Amino acid sequence: MFKINDNYLKLPGSYLFSTIGKKVAAYSAAHPEKEIIRLGIGDVTQPLAPVIVEALKKAVEEMGVQETFHGYAPDLGYEFLRNAIAENDYRARGCEIAADEIFVSDGAKSDSGNIQEIFSVDNKIAVCDPVYPVYVDSNVMAGRTGTYDPATGTWSDVIYMPCTMENGFSPELPKKRPDLIYLCYPNNPTGASITKDALQEWVNYANREGCVIIYDAAYEAYIAEENVPHSIYECEGARTCAIELHSFSKNAGFTGVRLGYTVVPRDLKCGDVSLHALWARRHGTKYNGAPYIVQRAGEAVYSDEGKRQLKAQVAYYMKNAQVIYEGLKEAGYTVFGGVNAPYIWLKTPGSMTSWEFFDRLLETAGVVGTPGSGFGPSGEGYFRLTAFGTYENTVKAIERIKAL
Amino acid sequence: MFKINDNYLKLPGSYLFSTIGKKVAAYSAAHPEKEIIRLGIGDVTQPLAPVIVEALKKAVEEMGVQETFHGYAPDLGYEFLRNAIAENDYRARGCEIAADEIFVSDGAKSDSGNIQEIFSVDNKIAVCDPVYPVYVDSNVMAGRTGTYDPATGTWSDVIYMPCTMENGFSPELPKKRPDLIYLCYPNNPTGASITKDALQEWVNYANREGCVIIYDAAYEAYIAEENVPHSIYECEGARTCAIELHSFSKNAGFTGVRLGYTVVPRDLKCGDVSLHALWARRHGTKYNGAPYIVQRAGEAVYSDEGKRQLKAQVAYYMKNAQVIYEGLKEAGYTVFGGVNAPYIWLKTPGSMTSWEFFDRLLETAGVVGTPGSGFGPSGEGYFRLTAFGTYENTVKAIERIKAL
Repeated sequence: MFKINDNYLKLPGSYLFSTIGKKVAAYSAAHPEKEIIRLGIGDVTQPLAPVIVEALKKAVEEMGVQETFHGYAPDLGYEFLRNAIAENDYRARGCEIAADEIFVSDGAKSDSGNIQEIFSVDNKIAVCDPVYPVYVDSNVMAGRTGTYDPATGTWSDVIYMPCTMENGFSPELPKKRPDLIYLCYPNNPTGASITKDALQEWVNYANREGCVIIYDAAYEAYIAEENVPHSIYECEGARTCAIELHSFSKNAGFTGVRLGYTVVPRDLKCGDVSLHALWARRHGTKYNGAPYIVQRAGEAVYSDEGKRQLKAQVAYYMKNAQVIYEGLKEAGYTVFGGVNAPYIWLKTPGSMTSWEFFDRLLETAGVVGTPGSGFGPSGEGYFRLTAFGTYENTVKAIERIKAL
Repeated sequence: MFKINDNYLKLPGSYLFSTIGKKVAAYSAAHPEKEIIRLGIGDVTQPLAPVIVEALKKAVEEMGVQETFHGYAPDLGYEFLRNAIAENDYRARGCEIAADEIFVSDGAKSDSGNIQEIFSVDNKIAVCDPVYPVYVDSNVMAGRTGTYDPATGTWSDVIYMPCTMENGFSPELPKKRPDLIYLCYPNNPTGASITKDALQEWVNYANREGCVIIYDAAYEAYIAEENVPHSIYECEGARTCAIELHSFSKNAGFTGVRLGYTVVPRDLKCGDVSLHALWARRHGTKYNGAPYIVQRAGEAVYSDEGKRQLKAQVAYYMKNAQVIYEGLKEAGYTVFGGVNAPYIWLKTPGSMTSWEFFDRLLETAGVVGTPGSGFGPSGEGYFRLTAFGTYENTVKAIERIKAL
């Protein structure tokens, strides 16, 4: 008799956002008259920018004509896109990343879930707590996390790096040495950012201790302040210790378009083996490239007009962030994030748990947020709201919360 | 110091089609004057059908407007597409498959590489020999295949089921009991098909012995003969033992559009655990859905006009298959496939190895095919040509081969 991968059974409950989706659906079904505002899942609401729509249409036209039809994409992605990424996201920032170190994919969720595959199952991971659930869950599925303790909500073989009000949501260097360190800046879910000097310390630590940093830069476009790095490769020595994940979901509204990329520098090695070669092999074997039309849309993101239009889109969401941040503050909440990130992280009132606050907000204000405890034990007592709603809904949601 | 997944190092050489790509690129660079005809990789050449182009354009328009913009897709795929699949690919054929047993993805290559994840690493796989390399390579990466013997080109823990001229390219039931059985019909690379009765025997065997059949139906649209099943669920009992993989690459020319789906029936269980739940968890955790616009394109495949246009496209390629099959026969080759499949499988002349024939064909005829040995040891002495070129190039290629 065949056997299943038992590691899957260790996962407690379903994927966080599936659970929220089901809860909201059940509430909606029971209260069809209630208008619900969703500031939970980090899904964008603004339509694709005109320059993206034009690029998509043009590429669709090409696909309908024999001479300009495109079949299988090159393994790593089209050169036109990889060159645009290398030029704009790296060279323009003084980072030395070549086009052939960039792997185009269907999004950062796939990459952040799949990247662990190229490492040994014996490797130990370190994650911020709270953290984007995919980093942990994908390692659970691979059997890298030991046993789960329901009382604490932690895994025996995972090194947790608490990010709390007390440390300003900046984790300390881990006391036990991990092999893989997941970092996400600007941070999901806390909205915290990191300075270049602080990130340099992580790079130095990783190089000294022989760790790989998996750096998730999905929210890079929301950085507003100086001295906040847009890429880990702005730090010296990152080429020998860091993999960087990027998404087009949040800077260009591609949550339903699906495009991302991962950088694996050729200098990142374990003995003689380059991680670049391993990731290339995974891509070549288990993936067949992002759609041609979507890669053309990605290219348009880097055009002058694209940059202008998408800057306006990011500004639109950051105005929402400000509305949430200031509104909640006025209402007496303790609030974080929202400056270099589209996420607002708030302390739940009194001794309310995160899920209690979720229920209360849903039932009394018709507003959906994300319980902090869904991101890890140190997220208990916190709550995440996203700036990705429409301006009108965001204002309305905050008015309702104020009225509670 | 972090460690890598050593299983990757066991993989001999690079992915087959990457190797071919590099060889052809090197030859082209050395002989820029030579016109090369590619009948190697199974990539389509006809442009997207008008009905698909229209569906894509309409969906792109929607994405550019606030009210009709679509962000993250539902975990399993949009209902409009899953309903169309369930209705057309299953209910219309008398197969009892529900829409919520269908998981939409970015293609059958991803699914066929990822599906092994939900099974134990201790499970033993059985594959046809020759075989689509992804089935084996993805299991190598997971550590399920033992050690590689370069002399025989086989893995110690894989059960090979030879498909040769002698058995009409129909493998016998394995003598040792496997846990997972990969079957692909119509077959890649041999172009062989299977009758419903013969497939029923596999289903009976799997149910009796407690195996799961991973059934790759990527070439289903090319079936021309009666009594050749379009789905494994046409067989009684398949719901308790079979997973089915589907691609839109070959029936609708989506190699560069990227869309596929996998069926995991709810009756397929290991003890109490449904594989449906495991695959749903994988989808929810490591994947974020196929692009909205691409799913709309998939829906158009099932419209009346879509069916008509794509039937013509399949007929176009099958005319190529006939040209290749008959041309090679006339030229004295021993030829197989090409009737229910877009692949022609030929015996290399004399005692030539597959790669020798590859080099000869490239250098003397400027035609690229795929060496049979690239698909497994029993593929040695065979060679694959695909019907996916243009008609003009296919005719030209066969003329050149005849002239050898």
